[in-house]
Amino acid sequence: MKLLRVGEAGHEVPAMLDADGQMRSLAGVTGDFGGAGVSLAALDALRGINLATLPVITGRVGCPLSHVPNFLCVGLNYARHAAEAGMAIPAEPILFNKTASALSGPFDPVILPPGHSKVDWEVELGIVIGRETYQVSEADALTHVAAYVTVNDVSERAWQIERGGQWTKGKSAPTFGPVGPWLVTADEVPDPQALGISLALNGVTVQDSSTSDMIFGVAHIISYMSRFMRLLPGDLIATGTPEGVGMGAKPQRFLRAGDVMTLEVAGLGRQRLDVI
Amino acid sequence: MKLLRVGEAGHEVPAMLDADGQMRSLAGVTGDFGGAGVSLAALDALRGINLATLPVITGRVGCPLSHVPNFLCVGLNYARHAAEAGMAIPAEPILFNKTASALSGPFDPVILPPGHSKVDWEVELGIVIGRETYQVSEADALTHVAAYVTVNDVSERAWQIERGGQWTKGKSAPTFGPVGPWLVTADEVPDPQALGISLALNGVTVQDSSTSDMIFGVAHIISYMSRFMRLLPGDLIATGTPEGVGMGAKPQRFLRAGDVMTLEVAGLGRQRLDVI
Repeated sequence: MKLLRVGEAGHEVPAMLDADGQMRSLAGVTGDFGGAGVSLAALDALRGINLATLPVITGRVGCPLSHVPNFLCVGLNYARHAAEAGMAIPAEPILFNKTASALSGPFDPVILPPGHSKVDWEVELGIVIGRETYQVSEADALTHVAAYVTVNDVSERAWQIERGGQWTKGKSAPTFGPVGPWLVTADEVPDPQALGISLALNGVTVQDSSTSDMIFGVAHIISYMSRFMRLLPGDLIATGTPEGVGMGAKPQRFLRAGDVMTLEVAGLGRQRLDVI
Repeated sequence: MKLLRVGEAGHEVPAMLDADGQMRSLAGVTGDFGGAGVSLAALDALRGINLATLPVITGRVGCPLSHVPNFLCVGLNYARHAAEAGMAIPAEPILFNKTASALSGPFDPVILPPGHSKVDWEVELGIVIGRETYQVSEADALTHVAAYVTVNDVSERAWQIERGGQWTKGKSAPTFGPVGPWLVTADEVPDPQALGISLALNGVTVQDSSTSDMIFGVAHIISYMSRFMRLLPGDLIATGTPEGVGMGAKPQRFLRAGDVMTLEVAGLGRQRLDVI
């Protein structure tokens, strides 16, 4: 299933893509997508729905998650990205947080915040957790995934790296977390480690890799995180970005008003983001 | 107003302390305390209630927040704590996150997680945000506070410091965020920089300081954070711990099963936590 939320910001309704790519409204059929609304149990209840009986809707495609209990990220999870960032390849996953209030839609503008100087892009494979996850083995980890989704982990590098040690400061501004366009349920992603992942800036491809290049794969990440914290249904985990960010370009190239980012993880849909 | 949540875990109802210290149920009067439920508008609607008309209830006092959009913390915000941690006094606030799933009640056991070796205590003044807060001046910052509350920022030092760079890893295990017993609304805390703050381990005082010793005060913290992220109603900010943590003791002393922590911020109520 490809699940999305359609409507003006703050008034989206849940929807599903049908076989023809039309959006069918799930208003009144299910609760909003977010938290327990994207638990494995909630999504299983949608299987077998006859989409042909549901109204076709049009309109803005918003963030496919209304909210997230936690917005967690893995840092430096592609070897060549660690190299371009001038950082060592980590011996175990680096974890950090974005604020929940950074969530944004896949076609909404990315707003350069007051005082910015080094805003950068990061296309990533996102994992949506489907049930409580604590002390889970790597062998069982993928059974805890509700869906996969494209995430742009927009980052202010000066705030992330030069302003006091913990990365959350540069990861959390409003609109710094574009997600979507769709949640693709895990059953439709047989191998999350075999997905193309790419981002173009103003039409020029700058990131172009595969999730097969991850240092720590999805199952390992989930199992590892679950040793340190209890993951909840609806938690969103961004799994790291491949090489090709602006910080790694020579010369460095950061976002400016008027730039356009297009990005996708293969099969999970494409974002188009104007920078303003 | 002193606001709390009473009942078995997962089934708490909102309540308020009356002038005699009795708990009066607000079930049916207001929604649960958490997120928009503790916005300034929601709390203002409770003022003037005649508590004498509401039923007295008894039972377990749980975490006074049902959930938090973000659980944020300030690191190294007392000079002598930075010294005992062997770290430099920060030039600007260090920010990091605890997971929302670390929230715990003020009388619930703190559970030593599998694989722990260096679990430590940190009594802190907590701020509950009352309305959307972005790009707010220091002069206006305190008008965004809904309430203050006692927080124990329980920390696994090996996971925080020795396992890959970002502190969230050691701050997020289940029960690592005891909060409460009460939210004290901001109108009853005329000066958040003049509160005693202390913690005793097995009856022996180990932390004993005042919020007047903070490097960065509450108004500065809120204004500073709002430059980097949008704070939401119900966000919880722990403002740092004074000296006297186990990591700073000579020899170091970390939590063991059977230990009892008692802690309080003056006027905000006392926690009692068994370590298991």
